[in-house]
Amino acid sequence: MKKIEGGVTAAKGFLAASAAAGIKYKDRKDMAMIYSQTPCKAAGTFTTNIVKAAPVKWDQKIVADSKGVQAVVINAGIANACTGAEGFGYCKETARTAAKVLHVSEDGVLVASTGVIGMQLPMEKLTAGIEAMAPRLDGSLESGTEAAKAIMTTDTKKKETAVEFTAGGKTVTLGGMCKGSGMIHPNMCTMLSFVTTDLNISDELLKAALSEVVQDTYNMISVDGDTSTNDTVLLLANGQAGNPEITEKNEDYYTFLAALYEVNETLAKKIAGDGEGCTALFEVKVVGAENKDQAKILAKSVITSNLTKAAIFGHDANWGRILCAMGYSGAAFDPEQVDLYFESAAGSLQIIKNGVALNYSEEQAGDILSQQSVTVIADIKMGEASATAWGCDLTFDYVKINADYRS
Amino acid sequence: MKKIEGGVTAAKGFLAASAAAGIKYKDRKDMAMIYSQTPCKAAGTFTTNIVKAAPVKWDQKIVADSKGVQAVVINAGIANACTGAEGFGYCKETARTAAKVLHVSEDGVLVASTGVIGMQLPMEKLTAGIEAMAPRLDGSLESGTEAAKAIMTTDTKKKETAVEFTAGGKTVTLGGMCKGSGMIHPNMCTMLSFVTTDLNISDELLKAALSEVVQDTYNMISVDGDTSTNDTVLLLANGQAGNPEITEKNEDYYTFLAALYEVNETLAKKIAGDGEGCTALFEVKVVGAENKDQAKILAKSVITSNLTKAAIFGHDANWGRILCAMGYSGAAFDPEQVDLYFESAAGSLQIIKNGVALNYSEEQAGDILSQQSVTVIADIKMGEASATAWGCDLTFDYVKINADYRS
Repeated sequence: MKKIEGGVTAAKGFLAASAAAGIKYKDRKDMAMIYSQTPCKAAGTFTTNIVKAAPVKWDQKIVADSKGVQAVVINAGIANACTGAEGFGYCKETARTAAKVLHVSEDGVLVASTGVIGMQLPMEKLTAGIEAMAPRLDGSLESGTEAAKAIMTTDTKKKETAVEFTAGGKTVTLGGMCKGSGMIHPNMCTMLSFVTTDLNISDELLKAALSEVVQDTYNMISVDGDTSTNDTVLLLANGQAGNPEITEKNEDYYTFLAALYEVNETLAKKIAGDGEGCTALFEVKVVGAENKDQAKILAKSVITSNLTKAAIFGHDANWGRILCAMGYSGAAFDPEQVDLYFESAAGSLQIIKNGVALNYSEEQAGDILSQQSVTVIADIKMGEASATAWGCDLTFDYVKINADYRS
Repeated sequence: MKKIEGGVTAAKGFLAASAAAGIKYKDRKDMAMIYSQTPCKAAGTFTTNIVKAAPVKWDQKIVADSKGVQAVVINAGIANACTGAEGFGYCKETARTAAKVLHVSEDGVLVASTGVIGMQLPMEKLTAGIEAMAPRLDGSLESGTEAAKAIMTTDTKKKETAVEFTAGGKTVTLGGMCKGSGMIHPNMCTMLSFVTTDLNISDELLKAALSEVVQDTYNMISVDGDTSTNDTVLLLANGQAGNPEITEKNEDYYTFLAALYEVNETLAKKIAGDGEGCTALFEVKVVGAENKDQAKILAKSVITSNLTKAAIFGHDANWGRILCAMGYSGAAFDPEQVDLYFESAAGSLQIIKNGVALNYSEEQAGDILSQQSVTVIADIKMGEASATAWGCDLTFDYVKINADYRS
């Protein structure tokens, strides 16, 4: 497997376009479209929030029943959540419009929305956007990058990545884009992410692979503990790489799984590192756990602790808050066995041994915590399992963005 | 029952004192002592965090085994948490010193600490503080108020309350003080609270009453989702009101329970309303629930949502975030049945009917949300049960306080 340039248009046969439809933002693109020249097998994972946005309900049905997906239509600015039957009708209308201009089946069109909850979509603008994008679809890396920019809301960076690997003697490409910055908390998946591949694989294994990979990637990030109404990860495979169809969990499947893990971990970390208002990516590794679930619960509890996140913002080695967050996580461990380390580009430092502070240098700890990516490693000395979670610091700007978001 | 002036010294036979021991803060009192002229029955509820501070471990043993509690020694500035065997030894030493100067038994002394995690207590200063306080003990309301001030950390207001009621023909007084502002999240109890009464009641019923009342009071508040290592509620009853001992759940018991609820709800709301950096008390009532547990889960999910809290700070009627937080709470309900109201001193306004926004006035909603105490009422139309939770808004100052706290 190797990392390559590009995103959602990296794989063979995938085109993208974007448009400024004026849905909410001024002077920027706010719609994107992904199109595959041939029908795709599709897998999706969606928010576990009971309050599901209309596009989530639409996509769940399409992913389960569709004979082949060919397009995804995405808008930023309005989430189409808490919009009742009217909102769901707009998903159908969006799909119908796209199906007409793209000459595909209505049940081959997925839709996704992100933005303010509770407002209805301005359908005239959306329709105009779709009609404008269709003739502009192309497979260049630039069009993928433009699409990645068009789906941003409070994001400050566009997020895309791609890899190449070999299956059945053929070169296969897997690439994706995502957006997400606030209302980010691990529970199934917590943002919009679109991953495309030219791999030839059975529908069943495509879905199995996505379900497995989201557990350790998107489900291990958090910005603010709020699980969104719109979270969606879509994975489309059009088979154009020409490899023999993968129909069992053989070596090719596991190669694909590793590539999918790489792409999704990269995208998930991009979301955590671009959390609303944040200044640092905050990574927590729990090692020496009895089992993976225990390690995950502990790691997630630390990255979601407001007090710990504020301490990271302050570059303050306030390790007591980390131990405290592990303690209320619900996972069992012995606090008096814990070793704790801080790590970043500025070095590595052990802070606690067997639950009690070492005589470490506060200055050195402050230096380590002043980097753009900061890691805490907690060794609980109970076994061999480990897990990693990704979050970000809690800053003035997070509060500012979210006190002002609708205005 | 009637509300009266005072706090921890309101009930007969309870004295208090405070001192500036210089443990961490300069130019302010940072130690307090509560003393009962006669031995008390004691009940306590403590943090569920696995990482328990040394004083929590000490008090759990005393409350379970003591033949009669006569004193509580409290310090602010250092939490004596994550301090290993050395820290636990300091609890014993504190109790021994207090027992000596007060001429009581060592196992009749409770201890409580609040402040920075991971530092050892400066025992010389603590000992000097205890020796200074003992001769100053008195039963005036002022000495209770001074004690309530001495136990503050990031609190901006001292917190005390008292009520009077009748049992067995005698006037009974119940009063308390508490502190708490950050690392506040409902799980058993989440701060330091000390409640005293001259009621005569059996040990068993005293403990039962406290356990019942904390569920709907301290366990329904949150400032930041972080369950502390030190959370402690202590309830002392010295019997000096002279009522016949309450030994069964009769009318007197339920009168006491109502008084205890009143005192603890008042104290709990004072904590939520003085949450670190906050500008408003944020109350959420869920009504029309199938059962109380469901109502509690929903109400707590909303008061702990960072996004909702930031919207309250921004006086923004961003009701989508409230519905979203209910949706990821884990409790089942139908979003399309929910009615939502905002309420405060500035009026009452329905925002949502059956899950969809009404055409309400944003200006009027903004006015309602600009008050110092703001209530959201969510009617889920499934039954008759209800619950209330209390939190606060998320502000720049919360981040500032917690990025800087140790320095």
